[in-house]
Amino acid sequence: MDEKLKFIKNNHCVKIQTKITELLNIDLPIIQAGMVWCSGWKLASAVSNAGGLGVIGSGSMSVDILEEHIIKCKSATNNPFAVNLPLMYKHINQQIDLIIKHKVPVVITSAGNPSTYTSIFKEAGITVIHVVSSTKFALKAQAASVDAIVAEGFEAGGHNGRDETTTLCLLQEVVDAVNIPVIAAGGIGSGNAILAALSLGAEAVQIGTLFASCEESSANENFKQALIQVKEGDTKLVMKQLTPVRLLKNAFFEKIDKAESEGKTVEELREILGKGRAKKGIFEGDLIDGELEIGQISSKINKILSAKELINQLLQEFDLSLQKIKHLPVIY
Amino acid sequence: MDEKLKFIKNNHCVKIQTKITELLNIDLPIIQAGMVWCSGWKLASAVSNAGGLGVIGSGSMSVDILEEHIIKCKSATNNPFAVNLPLMYKHINQQIDLIIKHKVPVVITSAGNPSTYTSIFKEAGITVIHVVSSTKFALKAQAASVDAIVAEGFEAGGHNGRDETTTLCLLQEVVDAVNIPVIAAGGIGSGNAILAALSLGAEAVQIGTLFASCEESSANENFKQALIQVKEGDTKLVMKQLTPVRLLKNAFFEKIDKAESEGKTVEELREILGKGRAKKGIFEGDLIDGELEIGQISSKINKILSAKELINQLLQEFDLSLQKIKHLPVIY
Repeated sequence: MDEKLKFIKNNHCVKIQTKITELLNIDLPIIQAGMVWCSGWKLASAVSNAGGLGVIGSGSMSVDILEEHIIKCKSATNNPFAVNLPLMYKHINQQIDLIIKHKVPVVITSAGNPSTYTSIFKEAGITVIHVVSSTKFALKAQAASVDAIVAEGFEAGGHNGRDETTTLCLLQEVVDAVNIPVIAAGGIGSGNAILAALSLGAEAVQIGTLFASCEESSANENFKQALIQVKEGDTKLVMKQLTPVRLLKNAFFEKIDKAESEGKTVEELREILGKGRAKKGIFEGDLIDGELEIGQISSKINKILSAKELINQLLQEFDLSLQKIKHLPVIY
Repeated sequence: MDEKLKFIKNNHCVKIQTKITELLNIDLPIIQAGMVWCSGWKLASAVSNAGGLGVIGSGSMSVDILEEHIIKCKSATNNPFAVNLPLMYKHINQQIDLIIKHKVPVVITSAGNPSTYTSIFKEAGITVIHVVSSTKFALKAQAASVDAIVAEGFEAGGHNGRDETTTLCLLQEVVDAVNIPVIAAGGIGSGNAILAALSLGAEAVQIGTLFASCEESSANENFKQALIQVKEGDTKLVMKQLTPVRLLKNAFFEKIDKAESEGKTVEELREILGKGRAKKGIFEGDLIDGELEIGQISSKINKILSAKELINQLLQEFDLSLQKIKHLPVIY
């Protein structure tokens, strides 16, 4: 390694300015994904304190628990943070009231129609970002006046789009189609991938899988240890007849995957799934019968780091990759 | 657009130097994929003449036809070109003899074990590149002493790996795992994507889908016109119980997809597939009953260009993206 690269390796960048960092008033174009059973106030505040945007995932929280997490997050960081809000949940109106009451600066909406709620947040001065898996939905979100979109590809963990469009393909379409900033999600597992996303025209990345394995993640230790062992090919998108979801392969996965390939009906699949399986797997650590939502890029996890350590590692990789690209011999 | 960008827009780069351009003695890190019924001598020589590496796809050729294409390609370009060779085909030994006899400078092997044939080519002074869809197979190819690998992700057209690892995820794994140069394939549909691939540590890209639609492609005009109409979500990976293949959705696709989701046996699926369907679709232009192999990124095709025009467009996009990345405000 030459002296210049050595310097960068030990002194990674502290600020990368993009339209998203300006919109959200943060230092780094790194957004932590809201994830069920992983992203409470501990993870969110750690990410925000490290210069990214921490996100409380309300999908696995009751209204009371969400309020507790918002209050704790505010006291643990002075930096902006967000709440991720699946729009199809039953307590949606109470959750919205809470977010407005506590002046949460950013809301990331998903799993639902952004046109119903975006204006409520915007009137309260809250920045709205909506998660999509296709250009069609990106255009709908833009029409609903959201401030930015997260474009999430097939390789992402958890619930996923039906078109199976990968992050690489989706970005090439969506960045051209909309004129609001795009955040790349799905498969971001290194600083190189952050630079790749920016090369594709994204203004930031959203990272779920890597943060799920962090010290501050609420996931069960069993689940985190399992993530260290994941190899390429160990996750798969299943339950395509219900809501497609990417899972780590385990006994439960095999059961539902087999049922699906045998042509079982939606009702039969729903019965096999039952209730509370993600909690059982991710939060309670049942690696056999639990539903282990995680992305393809979990194969890159080889150590449990703090959110700060993970971000530092990503920035070092980003710097090295950026230097290499800046010095690429291109002749005109 | 500022003056500098305007200049670049009209005067794109003519040379991008990487380990792969040095290995292959070409100007641009752009390799055209060998594709059944698309990539004969016309497309291959056009790509090589434009500074990339043109590739004759032998998968749909008899031994005599392959020889004819090699001879015509040599007379149509003075630049290096390659033959793509699926290793499981029955005339493999005669094809190898031909490639050596005509001193084809590069061979790209796929669909088979590289340890059987690599040494034969290397002894004849031929550069060997092997196509893989996983890090496991990349390591095997490296152990077989190939000179470089193509790492091809889930979004690629045609035959595909079983793990469903996307190009973005695969590159992040494979580049760290091997010490030979890696060529990114699957989902490369713009100059931005070329820069993204280089950011991820690839030394070149392999592009299939975009070249399949070019003027010089042997594909039927019906097929090319269909490619212009493709929208996001119009392709899908099917026949997972036989050999997974990404197809454009048409009547044949619906038939086999339905059969698969109903849990039909391998034998039943094979009967539905029958023989010669790719030829019927791609070469004869039967858009109803043909097997239309194409990648997800076909949604980016909106005009039939010559190979030279396509490459120029990619280079212009690459330049713009590179300038943006070079000027990214990063603070240390």
